[in-house]
Amino acid sequence: MSIKTRTGQKWVRHEDVLAEPMPTWTKRRVLAHGQEMMMVENEFATGDTAPEHTHPHSQITYVIRGALEFTLEGETFVLRDGDSVYIAPDAVHSAVAVDDSLLIDMFVPMREDFL
Amino acid sequence: MSIKTRTGQKWVRHEDVLAEPMPTWTKRRVLAHGQEMMMVENEFATGDTAPEHTHPHSQITYVIRGALEFTLEGETFVLRDGDSVYIAPDAVHSAVAVDDSLLIDMFVPMREDFL
Repeated sequence: MSIKTRTGQKWVRHEDVLAEPMPTWTKRRVLAHGQEMMMVENEFATGDTAPEHTHPHSQITYVIRGALEFTLEGETFVLRDGDSVYIAPDAVHSAVAVDDSLLIDMFVPMREDFL
Repeated sequence: MSIKTRTGQKWVRHEDVLAEPMPTWTKRRVLAHGQEMMMVENEFATGDTAPEHTHPHSQITYVIRGALEFTLEGETFVLRDGDSVYIAPDAVHSAVAVDDSLLIDMFVPMREDFL
């Protein structure tokens, strides 16, 4: 079930992880993961976007700090520090940062396309 | 696949969530979840512990802030801000807070025992 992370350990030091610049937002870091789940950290600057998209993976997003206007299956709401949202497989979703934001995205199963 | 959260929405406001006092650490909040995954936020004060335990769920822990001495299958390491760890099903693990800490635990599938 378990796989080794890119640092060769099950635990991942934040500073060992490559921060990937993204086309429409600031940075993505792929953190701890196994075949069945993956944790990803994203940094958005105010105005950055995650354009409308879907994927077969389930997702939960948690806002560590900042504010994102989130749209999920046609409903729009703002998530701030400590707020979270569950996104079912294939649900249409998008986000716009309304403040500089740091967030966690969890995917089930892992996003093989991110490795 | 999706279930309603206890606030009756797929998104969860942090302030709407009951903070449950725990026997050996400060507080637990069950956040967004579906049948296949659950996000849980935990607050530890320095010296708080999660005694050695196992569960059939996969888990990823991410430290938002603070420091925890983590032991996973006999290996001990300290996780600080932004660090994360993948815990395979049935892996023996425990933690001791060496600073006041806020952390996210993700479980696959959901912890029905937490509802």
